[in-house]
Amino acid sequence: WYVLCSNILGGCRGTTGPGSIRPGTNRPWAKDFPTITVQDMVDVQKALVDSLGIQKLRAVVGGSLGGHQTMTWATRYPDSLQTSVVVGSSPRLTAQALSFEVVARNAIQTDPHFQNGDYYGSPEQPRTGLAIARMLGHITYLSSEAMAQKFDVDRNSPRDIATGFEKRFSVGSYLAYQGQKFTERFDANSYCTISMALSLVDFGSTPAELENTFRESSCDWVVISFSSDWLFPPTQSRQIVAALTALGRRVSYCEVPTTAGHDGFLLSQEISAYGPLVSAKLGEAQPQAPRPHRQDAAILNMISAGASVLDLGCGDGHLLAALKTRGHQRLCGVDVKTSKLVVTAQHGVDVIDADLNLGLPEFQDDQFDIVVISSTLQLVPNVKALLKDSLRVGKELILAFPNFAWQPLREMFSEEGRSPKTAGDYGFQWYDTPNRRFPSIRDVEELIKKLELNIIESHYEAEGAPLSAEQLKDPNLFAEFAVLRISSENPIGGLSRP
Amino acid sequence: WYVLCSNILGGCRGTTGPGSIRPGTNRPWAKDFPTITVQDMVDVQKALVDSLGIQKLRAVVGGSLGGHQTMTWATRYPDSLQTSVVVGSSPRLTAQALSFEVVARNAIQTDPHFQNGDYYGSPEQPRTGLAIARMLGHITYLSSEAMAQKFDVDRNSPRDIATGFEKRFSVGSYLAYQGQKFTERFDANSYCTISMALSLVDFGSTPAELENTFRESSCDWVVISFSSDWLFPPTQSRQIVAALTALGRRVSYCEVPTTAGHDGFLLSQEISAYGPLVSAKLGEAQPQAPRPHRQDAAILNMISAGASVLDLGCGDGHLLAALKTRGHQRLCGVDVKTSKLVVTAQHGVDVIDADLNLGLPEFQDDQFDIVVISSTLQLVPNVKALLKDSLRVGKELILAFPNFAWQPLREMFSEEGRSPKTAGDYGFQWYDTPNRRFPSIRDVEELIKKLELNIIESHYEAEGAPLSAEQLKDPNLFAEFAVLRISSENPIGGLSRP
Repeated sequence: WYVLCSNILGGCRGTTGPGSIRPGTNRPWAKDFPTITVQDMVDVQKALVDSLGIQKLRAVVGGSLGGHQTMTWATRYPDSLQTSVVVGSSPRLTAQALSFEVVARNAIQTDPHFQNGDYYGSPEQPRTGLAIARMLGHITYLSSEAMAQKFDVDRNSPRDIATGFEKRFSVGSYLAYQGQKFTERFDANSYCTISMALSLVDFGSTPAELENTFRESSCDWVVISFSSDWLFPPTQSRQIVAALTALGRRVSYCEVPTTAGHDGFLLSQEISAYGPLVSAKLGEAQPQAPRPHRQDAAILNMISAGASVLDLGCGDGHLLAALKTRGHQRLCGVDVKTSKLVVTAQHGVDVIDADLNLGLPEFQDDQFDIVVISSTLQLVPNVKALLKDSLRVGKELILAFPNFAWQPLREMFSEEGRSPKTAGDYGFQWYDTPNRRFPSIRDVEELIKKLELNIIESHYEAEGAPLSAEQLKDPNLFAEFAVLRISSENPIGGLSRP
Repeated sequence: WYVLCSNILGGCRGTTGPGSIRPGTNRPWAKDFPTITVQDMVDVQKALVDSLGIQKLRAVVGGSLGGHQTMTWATRYPDSLQTSVVVGSSPRLTAQALSFEVVARNAIQTDPHFQNGDYYGSPEQPRTGLAIARMLGHITYLSSEAMAQKFDVDRNSPRDIATGFEKRFSVGSYLAYQGQKFTERFDANSYCTISMALSLVDFGSTPAELENTFRESSCDWVVISFSSDWLFPPTQSRQIVAALTALGRRVSYCEVPTTAGHDGFLLSQEISAYGPLVSAKLGEAQPQAPRPHRQDAAILNMISAGASVLDLGCGDGHLLAALKTRGHQRLCGVDVKTSKLVVTAQHGVDVIDADLNLGLPEFQDDQFDIVVISSTLQLVPNVKALLKDSLRVGKELILAFPNFAWQPLREMFSEEGRSPKTAGDYGFQWYDTPNRRFPSIRDVEELIKKLELNIIESHYEAEGAPLSAEQLKDPNLFAEFAVLRISSENPIGGLSRP
């Protein structure tokens, strides 16, 4: 790809900033440089792109404040990009993150050399305040764990640097060095200008506000967060994802496990975790054909052509890949394993990194025609909540699960008196199985009745073949697994019953 | 109780500090005030206590830096206190917390009015730097969640206060107000003096160092942390607890669930969560007699007189209370439920708030004669690790668990084809049971063999009576629950086998 990377409006290393000469004068803008916003930054980028004669960008990619720019591109110039990649960003700063920006600006602006921003001609610059601001920044970019790794081995051995700041501790000399070095290459007014633009970012603080914002967008999305980022925490990226899925936008999301903190978005080693997701979105993936699971054929039979499908616990995307091949357009998988998310995404479907045990807050009512829970029910603690939530998000639910009361398992348990074990989902030892629910078909069907849901289609199978008519008299005994299509609607009109 | 509460050495509101007149001069100590440590603070307190003629304090109680003083009392004057109550403290600052102290001191000491600390006679004081330091402090005392609750409703509506600091955002006017107000009642030199004393605290950074430190102590301990405290995080309190238990000191520990952050140690509403634990330690509790569980009698029969016992998953302390009544001295319970911890502590035994799924890092090899796991095995994901770790910490393990292959359960499952349910530990629906392991006696005994452990005593019981001789031919069928005493030693000398 061709990559465009421009300097930032308000900065001091290209493009216009407070240190630039104000037209019509021969003096810098200084304190008269206007308060700018991320919209202004993006407008300048748009002018650059226009001047190059580019109609549509394949993708706009940005981390942190760059993520805010990316989201602004998507909502302000929706026809100008195909894909938006938002890395380690947020709808707006948390109150905590905002407060660090406030203290940083206070440190700069109360530096006596700041002189209300008119310091360019002075012999002294507001270096002390700027250095303090930068020190604070460095703390917030790292995680506590990363700082411990970096500074706890030689806590009391500061580097011997020339500084007016304290150098009693190793972390102190590091911060002093970073703070001072920063003042050689960055301008205090630029810092305050960009910091204020960051502080003013506000894509919304409620789901409704966020949806309103992103309603303007039409591109595809990739959203990435970093597990130890406390400045732009993953919960905030999930808010973006929730708004986008609510609007039916195509979005993939991944929370990269890392101790790097917010800095994760700058580190090349983290790219291996989320880069393939971006590549997949850009259509560069060459997916391997996944091995279908035994219940997939029955599930596929229950899904009508073109239906939109949400697959909860999608694994490597075997089911979604088959649906993609069948021509379904709106497909989304949810799982918690980053590596599998990437494999799934390579089939050209959306994937969202989420823990089903926290419910489905990312999804709106009736958002999908079909929600699938396949080989997943047995892993979930809060079964009732998941079933209910699935039928909130989907018009119908297809539930495929192994039958713990299948005859061979029953006999194993009854005759041997030990926890039954079989191939497939129940192929684990009792003491290390990931499963935590062991339902039979009867158990599940009783629960469905209790929840006042209705089974509108069912398929029972054992050892590669559907049950015979004789076996169908007792599927709970003869079926190895069941596939149930479930609805919350009463098929014969619940209200009209006498 | 009589409560003594003295002002802090180095402060500015009583006791000697940098603003005090230096003896032999008529000027304040200012920059010549020495670097002091928490030891110095405690030495002054000790002199006060001595002057009052007090031989032994019933307890020393302190939060945050006060916790450091408490630990210093316990290790420096071990004969002078019975109980040490450490609230929201740590063995030393994390690198992150230390870095905030460094930046705060830098802000003060680079304020041009600071004049190397000799500002007392000057018309101007280093108020700006001190206010910036205080702003930073406020951020670190609160959790991100608490800040969001406090400031996100009216983010863009700052209070209209008189200030030279930024007041664009509500959190900005709050910080400006708090920062300025602080400068009216606190002295910049005192801030730096106390901040440096805090930064120099170091009870050790490794388990071995911490044990070395606390080896000097002989008192009982209560350690309290706050779940959302990121300045003095719970993991650091757990390090203190681990060192104390390793040394065989009596210690109770509780992590208070709260969104208050470090401020939790100052808030009266949090005291309801941990106050009863302190009361129990001070012998003020009037425990209710707990209802024994069905397996308790068999377990008690297996524990020899006077043995030290660690009860993993101790619940309301029913077993430990019985052992206490029998005169056992060294008793400790582990559980995760704060309310139950308090009930257990009221029996006069130690309780530690810990998640068994994270192993037993708080405990040393061979620390207890007996480790008990009763009605708990079925709740634990990592069974193998817990069994191994139990026999690392205890010389013997007593394992009491409900038998999932008990005849009525087997029949229920086999005949009805639904998840069996019975009174007691298996008295839940399949979809909401807290249990996640469903072992039979045979399952457990096979695992014990596989782990090369030995059952040295066993007890099988059903419906209130031990099994008959006939039933003992198949305890896996007839026993409702089993109690096994297990050792990692081979009773007949494993090495001499041919």
